[in-house]
Amino acid sequence: MVTQNKKREVLQNASILIENDSIKDIGQVSASADQEIDGTGKIVAPGLVNTHTHLSMTLFRGYADDMKLQDWLQKKIWPLESRLNGEDCYFGALLGSAEMIRSGTTTFVDMYFHMEDVARAVSKSGLRGYLSYGTIDLFDPVKSSAERQNVQKFHEYVKQLANPRVRFAVGPHAPYTCSEEMLHWAKEFAEKNNSILHIHVAETRREQADSHKQHGVRVVEYLEKIGALSKNMLAAHCVWLTKNEIKLLAEAQVKVAHCPVSNMKLASGGVAPLPEMFEAGIPVGLGTDGAASNNSLDMFETMKMCALLHKASRWDPTILAAQKVLDLATIEGAKALGADHEIGSIEVGKKADIILLDAKSPNLTPIHGKETIVSNMVYSASSGNVDTTIVDGRVLMEGRTIKSLNMGEVCEKTEELASRLVKST
Amino acid sequence: MVTQNKKREVLQNASILIENDSIKDIGQVSASADQEIDGTGKIVAPGLVNTHTHLSMTLFRGYADDMKLQDWLQKKIWPLESRLNGEDCYFGALLGSAEMIRSGTTTFVDMYFHMEDVARAVSKSGLRGYLSYGTIDLFDPVKSSAERQNVQKFHEYVKQLANPRVRFAVGPHAPYTCSEEMLHWAKEFAEKNNSILHIHVAETRREQADSHKQHGVRVVEYLEKIGALSKNMLAAHCVWLTKNEIKLLAEAQVKVAHCPVSNMKLASGGVAPLPEMFEAGIPVGLGTDGAASNNSLDMFETMKMCALLHKASRWDPTILAAQKVLDLATIEGAKALGADHEIGSIEVGKKADIILLDAKSPNLTPIHGKETIVSNMVYSASSGNVDTTIVDGRVLMEGRTIKSLNMGEVCEKTEELASRLVKST
Repeated sequence: MVTQNKKREVLQNASILIENDSIKDIGQVSASADQEIDGTGKIVAPGLVNTHTHLSMTLFRGYADDMKLQDWLQKKIWPLESRLNGEDCYFGALLGSAEMIRSGTTTFVDMYFHMEDVARAVSKSGLRGYLSYGTIDLFDPVKSSAERQNVQKFHEYVKQLANPRVRFAVGPHAPYTCSEEMLHWAKEFAEKNNSILHIHVAETRREQADSHKQHGVRVVEYLEKIGALSKNMLAAHCVWLTKNEIKLLAEAQVKVAHCPVSNMKLASGGVAPLPEMFEAGIPVGLGTDGAASNNSLDMFETMKMCALLHKASRWDPTILAAQKVLDLATIEGAKALGADHEIGSIEVGKKADIILLDAKSPNLTPIHGKETIVSNMVYSASSGNVDTTIVDGRVLMEGRTIKSLNMGEVCEKTEELASRLVKST
Repeated sequence: MVTQNKKREVLQNASILIENDSIKDIGQVSASADQEIDGTGKIVAPGLVNTHTHLSMTLFRGYADDMKLQDWLQKKIWPLESRLNGEDCYFGALLGSAEMIRSGTTTFVDMYFHMEDVARAVSKSGLRGYLSYGTIDLFDPVKSSAERQNVQKFHEYVKQLANPRVRFAVGPHAPYTCSEEMLHWAKEFAEKNNSILHIHVAETRREQADSHKQHGVRVVEYLEKIGALSKNMLAAHCVWLTKNEIKLLAEAQVKVAHCPVSNMKLASGGVAPLPEMFEAGIPVGLGTDGAASNNSLDMFETMKMCALLHKASRWDPTILAAQKVLDLATIEGAKALGADHEIGSIEVGKKADIILLDAKSPNLTPIHGKETIVSNMVYSASSGNVDTTIVDGRVLMEGRTIKSLNMGEVCEKTEELASRLVKST
């Protein structure tokens, strides 16, 4: 059992007692249980935390690849997005949920549209989600006001849903799509409601060049100057940062969602300066980004890609070692969400968000000792090794069969919706 | 059905008739068969071709990660390798075979020690393997003579095995571990026996620096100068090449095995100049390298990593597009082995090396059209999606259950052998 507790203990022959949604006991558990899951031959680990995605974009998976970012957005993605309705987003979110359950992710942070429908889907799927409506005002005061109402409406919806797994987050899309007023308002709304302030920051070099042109300073310097940085902020990407920008983020206690696969696929250029962020004390989590720019929601793949991208770009095989990368995908990711008191490790009192990997798979054999288990999880495991996924004490998948959703129906329905969407453009 | 034929046709509702080891008919097959496999809801594709690995190194998976190359070799890998016996290599090769069958690889090129045992394992597993004994003389004439005898002995062994799936290859380890005489002899032996000349070339920057010091020229320039290049040569890695070296490789009709995951993990620095190799007309295949430096033998992962590494390093999302990457892993890989007349695509007359992926998986949904299937195979699929693996017309895996091997036994035995090996150091 890979606990990811403070001592990073790896326990052998240990059991977990779950009561309701939480971990009640770990070790030699004597209590009898209503339901038992045999962990023999399995690697037990905390569920993975995906700190940045756009769940419903699973509908666009593989629709437009190998294109330049601006062409991809303007010619392919935006025309499709303008046609999306609530049903599309509901089923897209169910499809994404199914993919995450099958690949061992138990918590994720989302930003998209038709978020009431996404919230319903997450509620049904059994996953733990931080959901933000992607706010874009394009510096238009009328649009800005309407967008604020959308955020408030979604906030109300989540409150009434009253599902502890479905959390509200504020989601101003990016500094280049939101007015200063919107950024201020979003910050205040997030702080007032103690919620995550989810935003894209410094994903591309062009964004930095445009910021220089428009504001005379770099993106994070601009956010600092207008007072938009916040300890609630979860900044996705942060590829193009200077040392000064890292310092500003650290001082404001901003958190970062690193998305190596998406950054590589869209060829954002450069590599997010993770070692420098660690040194500055910035909590960093890993994210897949949406399936349109990845094209999967597979956190095992993201872990390996993260380790390899940094080793390769720094010419240093010792950085982003296996344990550190697993930390990013679990307890550090939880920290980035301000949720490390309840998720990110297997510890008594925490939520029972747990995955089991089939250790008797050829690609996870042999295991030379405790360190190898972590190494195998990061470098050798694939999503197909996930046997069981538990969230909030509820078994969402066992023996690779999803229990909370009818996977066949979800696949069929999204196939139909995606086909209709594409034909309509 | 993704045929990978010359027109790169993707067929719908088509069947394949297999007779003995070969594809007899494709399309609306009317003949009845002794055995039928239902391809409904499946993506049918040619088996993947792994052009560079060290199969038995699965024993060292996860044993030593996140280390500098020289420390890794000298302190960890070489001490273990000096203790390897035939039984270790046999079971290590079975474990690697199981992993490849489960991840859709049907043909591979190997280089290692105790190759008679590896050949027995490959014979049993049902895979198609090009096997080379890793020849290292360290410029010692006595050792050189002994190594030549080892090669000849293995050549005889493969001949007597008389299994058309198990092919002999010559394997001089590298220009920095083999004398000029050995390189000459290996080339002649390969050409005389019409076999692959498998060698490591220009994997690290240090190798190039050392070549300059020792020979006054770069690695490929040295090989050309001494007349060691050959149309039979399959050069693994080729990370650090100049334009002149690419020209020399192309002129000599050398083939290249590109190993992006291993190169990134060991932080070889730099990125193999694939676009320039393509332009020069060099046949390029993909390889995983051994499990000690990857740490998996997963060609689906290698395809995605290949696409992303080149996009990221060139700041160009349009290069190494999905179709091209699938080509490298199938028909181009076959070309690199001089075997595109018999494998690498689904065409009448070719060997029946075929895989089926479960298209009804969330991570492969939706499919927007023919192009999306290829895109999903490269960017969204994982090894866990492989349902069925067929080599030479024989079903090695169906419904993810391996039929040619007892996977549980193989895992248990390698676990035991690996543990004994590590304890002995």
